[in-house]
Amino acid sequence: MATFSVNSERLLGHIRELGTIGRESDGRLSRLALSDADRLGRDCLVSWIRAAGLDVAIDQIGNIFGIWANDKNRDQPPVMLGSHIDTVINAGIYDGCYGVIAGLEVIQTFKDADVRPDRPIVVASFTNEEGVRFSPDMMGSCVYAGGLDLQKALATRGTDGAILGSELNRIGYAGNYTPGFLHPAAYLELHIEQGPVLERTGTSIGAVADLQGISWQRITIEGQANHAGTTPMAFRSDAGYVAARIMTFVHDRASASEASGVATVGTIAFEPNAINVIPSRATLTVDLRNPDEKRLLKDERSLAEFLSRLQTTEHVKIQAEQLARSSPVTFDPEIVALIEDVASSRGVTSRRMTSGAGHDAQMLSAIAPTAMIFVPSRRGISHNPDEFTSDEALVEGANVLLEVVRRLM
Amino acid sequence: MATFSVNSERLLGHIRELGTIGRESDGRLSRLALSDADRLGRDCLVSWIRAAGLDVAIDQIGNIFGIWANDKNRDQPPVMLGSHIDTVINAGIYDGCYGVIAGLEVIQTFKDADVRPDRPIVVASFTNEEGVRFSPDMMGSCVYAGGLDLQKALATRGTDGAILGSELNRIGYAGNYTPGFLHPAAYLELHIEQGPVLERTGTSIGAVADLQGISWQRITIEGQANHAGTTPMAFRSDAGYVAARIMTFVHDRASASEASGVATVGTIAFEPNAINVIPSRATLTVDLRNPDEKRLLKDERSLAEFLSRLQTTEHVKIQAEQLARSSPVTFDPEIVALIEDVASSRGVTSRRMTSGAGHDAQMLSAIAPTAMIFVPSRRGISHNPDEFTSDEALVEGANVLLEVVRRLM
Repeated sequence: MATFSVNSERLLGHIRELGTIGRESDGRLSRLALSDADRLGRDCLVSWIRAAGLDVAIDQIGNIFGIWANDKNRDQPPVMLGSHIDTVINAGIYDGCYGVIAGLEVIQTFKDADVRPDRPIVVASFTNEEGVRFSPDMMGSCVYAGGLDLQKALATRGTDGAILGSELNRIGYAGNYTPGFLHPAAYLELHIEQGPVLERTGTSIGAVADLQGISWQRITIEGQANHAGTTPMAFRSDAGYVAARIMTFVHDRASASEASGVATVGTIAFEPNAINVIPSRATLTVDLRNPDEKRLLKDERSLAEFLSRLQTTEHVKIQAEQLARSSPVTFDPEIVALIEDVASSRGVTSRRMTSGAGHDAQMLSAIAPTAMIFVPSRRGISHNPDEFTSDEALVEGANVLLEVVRRLM
Repeated sequence: MATFSVNSERLLGHIRELGTIGRESDGRLSRLALSDADRLGRDCLVSWIRAAGLDVAIDQIGNIFGIWANDKNRDQPPVMLGSHIDTVINAGIYDGCYGVIAGLEVIQTFKDADVRPDRPIVVASFTNEEGVRFSPDMMGSCVYAGGLDLQKALATRGTDGAILGSELNRIGYAGNYTPGFLHPAAYLELHIEQGPVLERTGTSIGAVADLQGISWQRITIEGQANHAGTTPMAFRSDAGYVAARIMTFVHDRASASEASGVATVGTIAFEPNAINVIPSRATLTVDLRNPDEKRLLKDERSLAEFLSRLQTTEHVKIQAEQLARSSPVTFDPEIVALIEDVASSRGVTSRRMTSGAGHDAQMLSAIAPTAMIFVPSRRGISHNPDEFTSDEALVEGANVLLEVVRRLM
């Protein structure tokens, strides 16, 4: 079989064109799920799918599918390539969009070369991956894989008060297909890394072997507000100090571990938040991630024990509320090995890695052999206009995807 | 000489009456300096001073003096008793007001008994002690003691844009007397403790021997925002973690010290303050206090060295800005001993203590032998409607003040 390459101009052109849709008056890119901007992005994607000669299918949660099938292979389980095109507020142009557009590009490349695969190839764009306007994130893929009830998802109320099902209708993307109507033989998601590992190690391709389990907690500490000058150290119930102890505990524990778990305190608030008043209350969030469920459970347990000790030693009340929890996902070892093999055969470097972010692939892995391919992100930045991956890296990633699909189809 | 006692009904009645002035529609007490509410409080105080038969003098920064002098003692340096009647937002009724009203009560008690002191006795109410609307705090006493230029103080712009001198004129309290026109032989300030020490130790009277020096800094840490899941611990520049390290450093250092210094981080903010983003920036304030200037300097130096080390080890940029700095004040040892002696002679417990808060006495100590008398604050609370001192304790404090003045006059 001949060596195929994607049409790099078409691939990059599509990425850039989609990146112009949903710009606010100040130039910021925001295509929040099921907004007018999302509708415009969806319309653009659907027009490309139609122009490529694929069948378009929309399911009841608004997931968009471009199906390339023929009479001979139509009954076979397809290879599905997907991601999402909704964005965060003030986003970059690559996150999600790259995977969808590259999936379409792979199909077009095969189609242009008149290849006749044994099974259909499908490009999928899943609804509300980002979870900014409607919670939870990865909603469309979760419903598709049977992890979330459709009616419950449709009844979700957004941060702006809108009901998800109504918004789907309003923008014309409430489809008729039942989520899960296509059962893939394999699911592949090409994505920017959104982390610094590939860039820092000078690696071209990430063969993503697993995805971290995530534990989000909100911790509230109740102390006693008192005058910062007149209250001796020994008489204090300083909620702010306890927050600091929690921050250093989770950070230092993750840093000292040899596993690839991470721990982050991203938000904090003190009350009354006055320079000369001991904080009566501190609220912080803890984001723990680990690719090993046993270790994640151990991290959670050790934090709970530490909170319990602090309550006694620091004379405060502490409450911990679980905001989100997902178990780690292990991707299909054969597809991961195939990605490494393809990279090697193309003469580019690759490394097995863990995805620290959640992706639609994590939902699809419940119903199909799944893996992800990462390309480098400059300085690891994403969810930000500074998100950047070089054209060469984007094209290389799409060509690796192309060859992996060729060997699977 | 006979034993005197203040008129407790008059004392407590005045405290309660002044506490009714400046209530907002929701019942909150706020007499911000030079506001309409402050004018009403001043009018009330001046009416009491006049009713007591004292001379009223207003100086150019709006400090109010009630002067009890006669032809024989008029040329002698007076004993001055004072504090302030401006309040914070949503204040209690005791902070400041107690000292002014008790000062007036002491004079009235002597006057009622037809005592003829060798020197004048003056009650003083200083402008803008709280510093909420106009900065710096303790402004009236600072101008009076020569620590701040009068014209500069009059030109101060408030948080609401108002100019202090215009506001003084507007409310009718821009007087003609030159600040410092009376040079006291001694200055005494009776005040609620605003801390928990007297209550916790079951002590009636605090003989305040010194007042902590204060160092306020704003520390800004610049790290690198990155994805909380995809950025390995070793690759992070986590501004939030560095903030936590600073918090535990200053707290643990103050706690471990045998000196009576304190350290507080009362305010904090993260950017972007998102649960799954490593903070790119953290801003916190550090409030360091110590009654010993050498120790306070050492605390500041050790913090600066720690910040410098963190810059290197944590790959962040740290800036520290001094927001306020005052040196510790040592009060007059003879008056402090006199306060202890008076308490003892009255059969009540006393203890030498450090004032952790700033007071007008700290300014007056630059021009006169000065000391303060503290009474217990329930749970150490002040600057809050829950501020409370029992009637018995208020009366006891005023009687101690009365006897100290008797021995000084």
